[in-house]
Parts: sequence; structure tokens; C-alpha cells
Amino acid sequence: MTVPVHLSQRARWAGEQPVAFLMQQAVDRAEVISLAAGLVDHTSLPSVAACEAACILLQHTNARSSLQYGTTLGYPDLRRQVQERYIDQEHLDGQNPNVDLDQIIITSGSQQFLHLVSEALIDPGDIVLMSSPSYFVYMGTLANLGARVIGVPMDEHGMSLDALQDIMCQLQQEGSVDRVKLIYVISYYQNPTGVSLSEERRPLLLELARSWSEKQRIFVLEDAAYRELRYEGPEFHSLHYYDAPGDTVIHCQTFSKPFAPGLRTGFGFLPRSLVAAVTDLKGNQDFGSPNFNQQLLSVVMDQGLYDSHLQKLKRVYKKKLGVMLQALDQYCSGFQGVEWIRPHGGLYVWMKLPMSIDTGSGSLFFQIALKKGMTYVPGEFCFPSESTQVHQSCLRLSFGVESEANICEGIRRLAQAIDETISRNLLR
Amino acid sequence: MTVPVHLSQRARWAGEQPVAFLMQQAVDRAEVISLAAGLVDHTSLPSVAACEAACILLQHTNARSSLQYGTTLGYPDLRRQVQERYIDQEHLDGQNPNVDLDQIIITSGSQQFLHLVSEALIDPGDIVLMSSPSYFVYMGTLANLGARVIGVPMDEHGMSLDALQDIMCQLQQEGSVDRVKLIYVISYYQNPTGVSLSEERRPLLLELARSWSEKQRIFVLEDAAYRELRYEGPEFHSLHYYDAPGDTVIHCQTFSKPFAPGLRTGFGFLPRSLVAAVTDLKGNQDFGSPNFNQQLLSVVMDQGLYDSHLQKLKRVYKKKLGVMLQALDQYCSGFQGVEWIRPHGGLYVWMKLPMSIDTGSGSLFFQIALKKGMTYVPGEFCFPSESTQVHQSCLRLSFGVESEANICEGIRRLAQAIDETISRNLLR
Repeated sequence: MTVPVHLSQRARWAGEQPVAFLMQQAVDRAEVISLAAGLVDHTSLPSVAACEAACILLQHTNARSSLQYGTTLGYPDLRRQVQERYIDQEHLDGQNPNVDLDQIIITSGSQQFLHLVSEALIDPGDIVLMSSPSYFVYMGTLANLGARVIGVPMDEHGMSLDALQDIMCQLQQEGSVDRVKLIYVISYYQNPTGVSLSEERRPLLLELARSWSEKQRIFVLEDAAYRELRYEGPEFHSLHYYDAPGDTVIHCQTFSKPFAPGLRTGFGFLPRSLVAAVTDLKGNQDFGSPNFNQQLLSVVMDQGLYDSHLQKLKRVYKKKLGVMLQALDQYCSGFQGVEWIRPHGGLYVWMKLPMSIDTGSGSLFFQIALKKGMTYVPGEFCFPSESTQVHQSCLRLSFGVESEANICEGIRRLAQAIDETISRNLLR
Repeated sequence: MTVPVHLSQRARWAGEQPVAFLMQQAVDRAEVISLAAGLVDHTSLPSVAACEAACILLQHTNARSSLQYGTTLGYPDLRRQVQERYIDQEHLDGQNPNVDLDQIIITSGSQQFLHLVSEALIDPGDIVLMSSPSYFVYMGTLANLGARVIGVPMDEHGMSLDALQDIMCQLQQEGSVDRVKLIYVISYYQNPTGVSLSEERRPLLLELARSWSEKQRIFVLEDAAYRELRYEGPEFHSLHYYDAPGDTVIHCQTFSKPFAPGLRTGFGFLPRSLVAAVTDLKGNQDFGSPNFNQQLLSVVMDQGLYDSHLQKLKRVYKKKLGVMLQALDQYCSGFQGVEWIRPHGGLYVWMKLPMSIDTGSGSLFFQIALKKGMTYVPGEFCFPSESTQVHQSCLRLSFGVESEANICEGIRRLAQAIDETISRNLLR
């Protein structure tokens, strides 16, 4: 007789992330061109810069301190560099950056920051609002915490504030407005649509969050993971920039996309009211992120290796984005009802197929694309469970990981799959 | 008017770890000799080995893969090396190690492993049993999850199995035996007492856990953090070794103590029934530990740098332990009622003062010791909240971080503090 294992409620909620399914596919079928994977460009990964920095760090008289325990908040020099970088990004020189060093925490990728902040705020049944579609991995994290996730319609300027206001009113009517804890916004080149929240809406969103913060603070969780991957178009101030009282915006960025995901290092800015809670949770979970990686990144930044890498990387991605858009123009512009968004940065192109084509992971179209030798992220993964509209015929294309030639060929295969699916639909 | 911030239940449980209080003290008063800190010996940290490995790794043709995302379970080569090392540790050559590669997970220190496993199993009110005294940081982690922690009396052979059996009977009587999820055991040179669980008790403990696993599996969580830091005395098989069916023991070790805490890398073996749950949780929290650190450690092991460092480190610690024991003999053997345990490994010496001396963090004795210029970990931190006996007059001394001269001087100051406190008590 087998003795049953009683997992915790949270473990039962964890479930496997769709990202695992996608990664497994990439591993299982090396011949398939993956325009699904959220990995970064492999050939431009900064092994030379990392080697130079590691040698500087480990041959320094103070080398051993990088191999010792650090603090839960993180390596002070790196936090200072992060603050200085933010001051540069916002062109603040001389002005108050509105974030002190003891509000900056270094985490194991921005994913850990998102998790910690969510865990600090969310009890089962609490509500998080986000654009619909949005970043599916974070939805998994929220499901793990038992959160209720509500999608807010968006347009080419990002989350619709009118729609957000309507949803808040509805929540008030149903008596659950005091369960709203977070409004999650990927403010630059959103995953999956590539759309940035317009400059105009940024302060308005904070006003709206504040106006509804009656019984409890509603925080705006700003995920600025792609901020540094701007290839063209306007620069935007962060949402954090507009939070003068410093009580509403929780801001995070990562070193994964602009430098190297293998270092698993990200960071966040915490409103004062959350510093103790998030630090305590992190202390209980890992005592702080690897000191070695933080000191390594500090050397990388100090030596100017970060900026030079970023400039190079942006050229690489800009070119790859151009290749993808050109291939889409070449192979897909002939189909009626097929359209896509041209992003100014980030790693993704969002595409809509005719309503008659279901792009889901169990769909015929997904199978045909796979047989043709390409994969994508089905749009269905990207819609919060409570969304007014789920677009079954959308998909996310990533130009991050594959070569230019493969991106082009992948889009050609995608077009073949569209063509074949339309033909089959006509025959039915 | 300030809007209140509604933290989650878990954040409210998190509280600050006593370790933070101890670390802060060490930082604030550099002149104080800290026999409290659980840090490792600084001068022996392997900066040369790490530099050699980093150069090999980052100059290799495959360098970039270490900077890319990895998998949630961890770098396969390192997991294989961990498995091989375990086979060596148990002298199993040819025999089944009873752990497959897909049951081995690499984590951000063993702390993250302890947290993940606990989170996968524990709902608020669930019960964890452990020796009294035990590792206080893990108690904080359990408090964060809302667990009920019950102390089991121990002797010089580790946890008393008779006492454990009695407690299980009591729990059955009060109707809560089905809430017992874990028995936590630091099987080698326990923190804080330095005592190892005797070979004889190891299989018996598993039998006991199995005999009480009626409605739900009661796991034995084996923390083998100090396994590799043996300076003398017998070798022991792990508890995992005795778990032939592989359904009861969760085993973890770390690279922090034997190599470098700054890499924040540990690992664990999971029973099959927990692999999915723990991996899902980790996936939601950080996508896996840093690939770079794992590949670096893999090179370190592959090049023989790990073993040569460990041999050197063991000589360093053995000598420091000798210095501490000699100083204790010299300065403290004259006091009546003062005694200490002579460990065969690990990083700690556990000391009992006369019952009349309270060693607590708010005690007169703690203040006197601080004024004399030394700190220790008050024994009160090390007793689970539900313990039959809390020894207010115990303390933990660490010989890990301070130099030999400081260890000797620290013990001299400790003796002065004992002397002064005894004198003051006599005057009252």
C-alpha cells in the first residue's frame, strides 16, 4: 500500500508552467526553428567581457569577499551602480532619484523579484490586474499564490485606463475592490505585444491606482525588463519616475536580457512600506542572491563592459527584428486578416491570424506549424483567466534566440502553415 | 492620511531572522570578536581555484552556454557529478545510489532547498519535528510558513528516538498526528551542538517515520550541510543511504561550507513523489539557479580543484577547532558547571554555563560579553518554540570565521564575562 503524500495548498496550485512545455519542445526537436523561446541571442552572449571581469574580480586583493556570504539586500556597490544607472536613464542629474540605496534589492533575476513582491502582498483570492494579453510566466506565479488575475483590455498605447476604471467600478459593485493588491504593467515593449505604455498614460495610471487606494494601497508593479532594449522610437520615463511620493510604484529590471541570463541577476526598487517584508521573505528563502555574481556584474559595469555590450546587443537585435519584419512582409502580407505589430524594442512580435485559425497548443494549426518545422507561443497562454476577450488566433514570435537565417526561414514555414490551414478550412 | 498596506499572511509571519540581528552586530562593531557568525573562514576562500575555473569555463568554445538560461532542475553535468560524489561518499561503487539524475535539483544554497521542500509540504498548522536545540535559521523559515515546530530531546548520539516515539504518541492522542509532515535532522556535526546522529539510530529513525506514516507520508529531511567537514572520528552513512525504497528521505548538501558561500549553490535529492512539486515551485520563483555558477562548480570539480580545496580547508578548520578547544580548556575549565561538547567536524562548539547564567540576547551576560569584546549565538535562539526544555544558559561558538588568534582571545574574553557574571551573581 502506498502512503499518500500530502502536498501543501501552494504546491497543488503550482502546476507546471507553459514555459516548461515550450522549452521541452525546443530541447526535444533541435531541427525545429523556435520562434517561441524567450531565450536571448546566443552568439552575442558576453563571454569575453565576463572573462575579463572575472579575472579582474578574482585577481583583486579583495577577491575572496566575492566568495563569502553577502547581505540579503545585495552588494552595496552594485546597488549604487543601479541607482546611478537609473539616474542616467531618467536624465535626473542633480535631482532626487526617489529611491534610496536601502530600497534597492538585488534578486535572482527579475522573476524572483516579481515572486517576492507578489508573495509579500497576496493572500489567496486577492486580485491582480494586468493588460490582456500579458506575460504568461508571471500569471503562473500568481496562480501559484492563489491570486485572482483579471485582464484589462489594451490598445496600441498599452493598458486602457478607461477599461481599468470600469473594471475597478465593477469590482466595487461586487464588493471585492479591497482585494485588489497590484496592477502589473510591463511598461516597455511589453511581452507579448511589444507595445509600450504611452507617456501620457503613465502618470494617469498612478493617479487611478491612488484614487482607488482607499482601504488598502494598490501598488503598480512596473516590470521594465526590456527598458534597455530600445531600437528606435521614443524614450519613456518609467512609471517610477512619476511616483513622487514613492508610495505606489514597485519597479524592477533585469541584467538577464541586456547582459546574461546565466548570471540570474535582476533588481527592484521597493516602496519603503515593502522593504522589510520583501527582505524578510528573501532572507528566509536564500539569504540573498549570489555575492559572486553581483560583484562580477559590478566589475562589468565599472569597466564599461556593460554599456559596450549593450550597444552591440541592440544592433544585433535591431537587425534581427528587421529581418523578422521583412520576412513577415515578404511571406505573410498576402493573407487577408493576418496582421502584426511593429515594436520599437524588446524581443517579440505579436501576430493576429484570421479568426478562423485557432493557434492554441492543442490546435491543428500548431501541429501543422510544428510539422513544417517552427514553433511559436500560442496567444491563449497570454490571456489572464478573467479576460473579457481571449484572442484564440494570436501568437507571439520571438526574434531573440534564432539566427537571422532561421528567423527568415521560420517565418516562411509559418506562412506555409497559415496557407495550409486556410486551404484546409476552405475544404471543410 | 496614509493608506494602509495590506501585507499577506505569509509576509506577516516572516519576521526578521535572528541571524540578521547577529550579522548586523558583526557589521556594526568591527572590533568585537564574533564567535557568533556562521560565516566561513575568509583567508582560505578559494579565489585562485575560482579564477582558474572561470578562465577555463569562459575561454572554452562552449563558454556562452554558461551565460544562457539553464533548466529548473539544474546543469546536468553538475547533477551527475553530485551523484558520483555521493556514490563515493557512501562507497557504493557498482551499487545503486538510489537517486537518479532527475531527482537531483541544484538550488541557491541548501537554504533554498530547505525552503522549497518545506513550502511544498507545509500548510499553516502542519507539524515539523526536530532536535532541540537545532538550526535556528530553518526555524525562521518554518515560522514563515506557519508551521508548528516541536523540539525532540537529544543526547550525545543525536535525536532521542524514544522521545520522538513519545511525542508521536502524544500527537496521536491530541488528534494531530496527521499534521506531521517532516522530521528535520542535521545528520552530521549538527548546528548548533556539533553532535552527529549515531549510525545505529539512522535506520531506526527511518523505521519510526515509516511506522507513523499511516494517513500521510512523514518525510525525513536530512540536512547534510557539514558532511564533508569531518576532522576526526567515524564516517557515517547518510540517512538517505538507509532509505532503500527511496520514499522517505529528502537529502541536501551545500557547496557553501566546503567551497564558497558566495556562489550560493547547494543541492538536494528528492523522493519521486516530490520532484514535480518542488520543481514547479522553483520554476515559479527563479526559473532555476544561475547556470554560470553551476557550470563554474562543474569545472571546479572536474579539474580536481574542489577536492584539493576541501583537503586544505579541513586542515584549516581542524586547527581552528583545536585552538578553540585548547582555549576553552585553558580559560574555562576552572568554572564549575561550565561544560562544552568536543565535535568531530562542522563549525560549532556548544557550551553550557551554570544554570544561574542566562545567555539570552537581552541578558546581562550577553551585554558583559559584548563589553569585553566578543559575541556568541544565544542558546535560546536554537530551541523550537514547543520544546520540553529550553536551556537558557547555553550558547553556540563558531570557529569558522575568526583567526586562530582571535578565537583564542575571544574565548579569553568569554571566560572574563563568565567570571564577572558569577561574581555579580554572588554579590546579589
